[in-house]
Order: sequence, then structure tokens, then C-alpha cells
Amino acid sequence: MVGGGQLARMTQPAAVALGVRLKVLAATAEESAAQVVNDPVIADEKALADLRAFAAGCDVLTFDHEHVPPFALEALEADGVLVRPGSVALLHAQDKGVMRSRLTSLGIPCPRWTIVASPADVAPFAASVGGDVVLKTTRGGYDGKGVWLVPAGTPESSETVAEPFRAGVPVLAEERVDYARELSAVVARSPHGQAVAYPVVESVQRDGICVEVVAPAPGLSSELAVEAQRLALAVASSLDVVGVLAVELFETVDGRLLVNELAMRPHNSGHWSIDGAVTSQFENHLRAVLDLPLGSPVARAPYTVMVNLLGGDLPDVYPAYRHVMARDPELKVHWYGKGVRPGRKVGHVTAYGSDLAELRERAWHAADYIRGDIDE
Amino acid sequence: MVGGGQLARMTQPAAVALGVRLKVLAATAEESAAQVVNDPVIADEKALADLRAFAAGCDVLTFDHEHVPPFALEALEADGVLVRPGSVALLHAQDKGVMRSRLTSLGIPCPRWTIVASPADVAPFAASVGGDVVLKTTRGGYDGKGVWLVPAGTPESSETVAEPFRAGVPVLAEERVDYARELSAVVARSPHGQAVAYPVVESVQRDGICVEVVAPAPGLSSELAVEAQRLALAVASSLDVVGVLAVELFETVDGRLLVNELAMRPHNSGHWSIDGAVTSQFENHLRAVLDLPLGSPVARAPYTVMVNLLGGDLPDVYPAYRHVMARDPELKVHWYGKGVRPGRKVGHVTAYGSDLAELRERAWHAADYIRGDIDE
Repeated sequence: MVGGGQLARMTQPAAVALGVRLKVLAATAEESAAQVVNDPVIADEKALADLRAFAAGCDVLTFDHEHVPPFALEALEADGVLVRPGSVALLHAQDKGVMRSRLTSLGIPCPRWTIVASPADVAPFAASVGGDVVLKTTRGGYDGKGVWLVPAGTPESSETVAEPFRAGVPVLAEERVDYARELSAVVARSPHGQAVAYPVVESVQRDGICVEVVAPAPGLSSELAVEAQRLALAVASSLDVVGVLAVELFETVDGRLLVNELAMRPHNSGHWSIDGAVTSQFENHLRAVLDLPLGSPVARAPYTVMVNLLGGDLPDVYPAYRHVMARDPELKVHWYGKGVRPGRKVGHVTAYGSDLAELRERAWHAADYIRGDIDE
Repeated sequence: MVGGGQLARMTQPAAVALGVRLKVLAATAEESAAQVVNDPVIADEKALADLRAFAAGCDVLTFDHEHVPPFALEALEADGVLVRPGSVALLHAQDKGVMRSRLTSLGIPCPRWTIVASPADVAPFAASVGGDVVLKTTRGGYDGKGVWLVPAGTPESSETVAEPFRAGVPVLAEERVDYARELSAVVARSPHGQAVAYPVVESVQRDGICVEVVAPAPGLSSELAVEAQRLALAVASSLDVVGVLAVELFETVDGRLLVNELAMRPHNSGHWSIDGAVTSQFENHLRAVLDLPLGSPVARAPYTVMVNLLGGDLPDVYPAYRHVMARDPELKVHWYGKGVRPGRKVGHVTAYGSDLAELRERAWHAADYIRGDIDE
């Protein structure tokens, strides 16, 4: 697995159970995953020579992020390395312009969009959609970075319109969708086309960062749930994705689904599955990229709530870490081994059961306490 | 954790979630746990100098087996190392004579027993219990090794009576208990005395090796279940155990409980808890030795069945490994990363749900298939 973040870290327990020797290429020995695997390779994930040396010790190469340059992926494939998902599939998670173009050609519903070449192109697009516009750099954004909201009527001379163009990559303009909530459909697909779909979840974002996931999405009609799963399975199949694919969706106020983003790796909206599903997304990602039969994605409890732990201003979180465990012996705590900084994802907690309000209270208490927002 | 076997290996997923950096002292780099932790220390677990060097890099020392010599544990404690469980507690899991003597003084029910000094002492003890006798070396036995059944009337000149004395350690003689089944009560206890008791399980042995565990023990009266849990908690408290304690019990045909063995570490009879309980025995062992609040030991399903995967004569188990996953997407497969040899524990599978007969069929199918006993 290329990348030493928490996704690679959470893949290790699945690898331990499957008897798989997980190798990790990390940027530093202190990265989240590097702490918990045997003999991590400390190297540059963007340097082809480093990737080649790493791949030589692996049966198959996969990723905990989308940052490996496409040219490097193509070169590795030309070498004969099994890259999963492959470079062609992965490009749709790396480049939002490629993603929008392909999904549109497949008939998958998306927000109205266009590629804008300069600030002057933004106002005409805004006029055509008749409202606010969202600008996104087509490459390199994550967790709310690389995204700008442009209210209707914003002049082209404004900083909000100008800034996205400075990164030197094409800029995507999308209508701002009037959505009721955000959903996520996570599926896993193996090289010979076996696929499984997890229950569709509701995902709550703050400042562009996922803070809460509820599985399954409360009150979602079975028609929309099945439509979201079918849509994710269709994307996985059409793009020949191998591994986990997360399709982030808007549920509009008038009850339609629109694709927001794609990720081709275990995704924050699937973390609930570690404690809440028969087979975690991490295990199914491994099974898929190793061409092993996939495991059941079925939920183990009526509801599972996952809340991210974000760093706060607490100088020492150890007392809070102990408090969270002492207060709630049924809470599952996942700690990523990362230093605490304000706003940084340092872990998550999961609560499962049948009383959704109680589960949310328990999970949020832990997050608020770790962040230092409450002290009892 | 001293010892690189599957117990240390299965502790790693718990450590990953808790944000704990698990260090492992293993005999070789190929051992089960050495494959899955960062920078395993390859050293001699019986050499004090090696243990001292290892302990210098740890906050607390714990074990995946009972083979570290008592003198070494005492020396480490004299150095100021936090050894958990401590040497005094651990001696009761290392020496069956010490165990029987202490349990008897505590009023804990045990089979009738005595220490026999020579083969000539066996017949008088057999006469006193009026039946078959079991001889055990007080130290060094495991998985049926170091145990001999001596039928009533066996002459002292027989090899079965003579052999146990050749190891040069004291020999324990016990009545052979006429038991209905074997049970196990697993508890975890922290340094300040917090303790949790897992549901009491039924454990099925073949040739002295655990092959199946059902949680909870089917049909066990709540009176006996509570008695078994109380007894295990009393042993943990009286012996000042820190970490997991497994108390293996006989349920006699007349409905009494007798203690068979003690283990002070995660135990085969607790493997079901990884998939079947809110908090696994491995997580609670870590929480206990690190003096963190303990997690809930409550079962997540009406029944969980664990069946050990023992090696057979199959030259290549990979096709069987794939078959097991393909046949049953809800089965949880745990593979220890060990080479396959006939009779060797190479993994286990877990099935959970409400139909016990179906769960047993599913789990045993996997074990039989891996062993090569069936081919469909």
C-alpha cells in the first residue's frame, strides 16, 4: 500500500486476520501506518524509482490516497506491476474534470458542470445555472481544500474567483446543489467483477471535513438506497475499479441523487464498517485487490454511528482518551497514532445499537471531550 | 509482548485501534507476530540480558505464553520494569503444583491432587481416588504435551507412569474427572482492580488441543455460569492477576465445577471474542496491562462458534483458503501466518448468529476443508 496514513493503518488489522503481509510505503517512519507494519519503506511516493523499488517487493500495489502521479502508475503497469485500482480507473478519482466528463457520458447524474478556462468564464456559467457556483481545482484537493463557493453575482475580479486558477491546473465549475443531505455508497469490486455494496450511509460535513457518518442513512427510502447502490456498482464496473470505491452523493431536496465525488480506496464514510459490518471496507479492499472472494458487507446492528475525532487545543489528550473509555465501555475507540493539532483527524469512535439518538450522543460526547469542548 | 506467536499477532489489531505501539520479542523474524509489528526484536525470551534490553524500550512488559523463567521475571521487577501479570501471579500459570496448592488454600474447587515424588507414589494415590489418574509435569506442558492418563491398576513399572518423571520437574497427580464437558471462564483485570468477565464458554478438546469453542456454553444454567465467572474473578483478585486470566473448568456429570488449568494471557477459549464480543480479549488484555479502563465483554450475537484450523496433509492450502471465503462470505477467517504442518494450529474461523447447529456446520466445514478432510 502506497501511503502511510490512517487508511493504511486501518488496513493492517484486516491484513493480520487474512494472513496477508501488508507492506507500506510511507513518507516518514512516524506516519500513522508506518508505526504498525513490519519494515515500512520510507520513500517518496511521487518518485518513480522509489515506487519501482517498493513494488518489486509486492504481489500487488494499492493506495491509501490519490496522490501518486498518473505517469508513475502507467510506468509501473508497463513494468508489469499489478496496480489496483489501475491507472485508468484511478484517474477518475485524481482528476475531477475527467470524472465529470466520464460520469456524464455514462448517464450518471451529476450537478451541472463545466471546465472554466479563466475567471471570465465563471459568470456566464453562473448565469446558465441561475445560482451559486462551486469552483474546484480538478487535481490535488481533499478535505475541503481546493474548493471555493462563489455566490451568484460575484464579480470576476474577486479573489474567490481568481484564486482557484492560480494552482495552474484546470478548474471545474459546478452548480451549487440545494441538497437535503449528503450520502455515500461504498462498494468493493474484485478483478473478475465480483462486487458487494455496503448499506448507503448519511455523511455529515463541517468545513469540508467529514465529521459524522450514520449507517444506514436514517429514513432513506429503499428505492433511493438501491438506486445509490446500483449507481455505485455501475460506476465501479464501467470504470473497471478494483478495490473499494466510495461514491459521495447529494440527496437533493426534491429527492434526486447527484454524484459529488469519487474515491477509489477505503473512505471515511466506510470507517463504521470496522465495528458495524460483517466485513470491514479495509478487509474487502484487501480481498478485492488480492482477487480473493469478497466478504459480506451486511450491517451487524440496526444503526452504527461513526464520529471523527478532531484535534483541539488540549495540550495533552491522554486524560481525555482515558475518560472516553471509562465513560462508555461499549464505545469503540480508534486512534491513529498521530500528533494532535487543531482540526486534524486523529481518530474516530463508533457506537452501534438500535437507539440512534443515544448512539449519536455517545459518539459525539467522545469527540467533543477529545477536542476539549466539554469537560464532564 | 514477549513471544511472537499467534496471541501476540492477534494483539496487534487491538493495539492499532488503541493507538498503542506494540513491540514484540520473537525468536525468529518469521514468527507469527513478528510479521505484523514494527521492528520486532529477535532475541532469546529465556535470556535475562535479552529481556532487559527489550524491556528498556517498553512502558510495560506482558506475554503471549508462560515460558519466561520466573527468575528472569523477578530480576526484571527488581530492575523496576512493570511486568504484567507480575512474577508472583504468573507462577500460578507456570507451575501446576503451585497453582493447585494455592487454589486449594483459597477454597477453589479442584480435582483431588497430590505431588508424586516417584512412580511408586502413583498407585497409592490412584487407590485413594478410586479410579484413573492423570499425571502432569508441573512445568513446561501445553496443548496436551506433558500430560499422561494412567488407567486404574497400571503397574508402576509401566512406561506411562515412568515417563513423566524423566523431565526432572515435580510431577502432579490428579484424579481423572468424570466430566460432562469443559468450560472456560475468561476475565480481565486491571492494576487497580477493575475487572470484567466474558460469557462462560464451552470448549471442546481433541488429543489435548482445543478444537472448538461455543460462546456462551449452550444450556449452561445461569447459576453455574455466574459461579464460574465469580470463581474466575476471585482467582484473578486473589492472585493479583493483571491482564487476561482464563480459567479452564470441568463441568462434572453431577453439575459441579472444578478448575482444570489457569492461563494468564489471551487464551484460545477467548478467540471468539474478536468477532463475537464488544471488546476482544486481546483489547482488554492491552487495556488491563496499560491500566486503561476496560471495555465491555458482552457478546454481540446469541451464539458465536470458533473452530481452530489445524494443518493437514494438503501440500498447498491456498485453494482451500479461497474456497472457505467463497463458500461463506459471513465467516470470519483468521490466519496466523504460520507454515502448515499436520495438527498445527494455523488459524481459526468464527461464525456468529442465532442458529447454533448452522453456525457449527459452517465453522467446521471450513476447518475440515482446510485440513483436507473434505473436498466440496
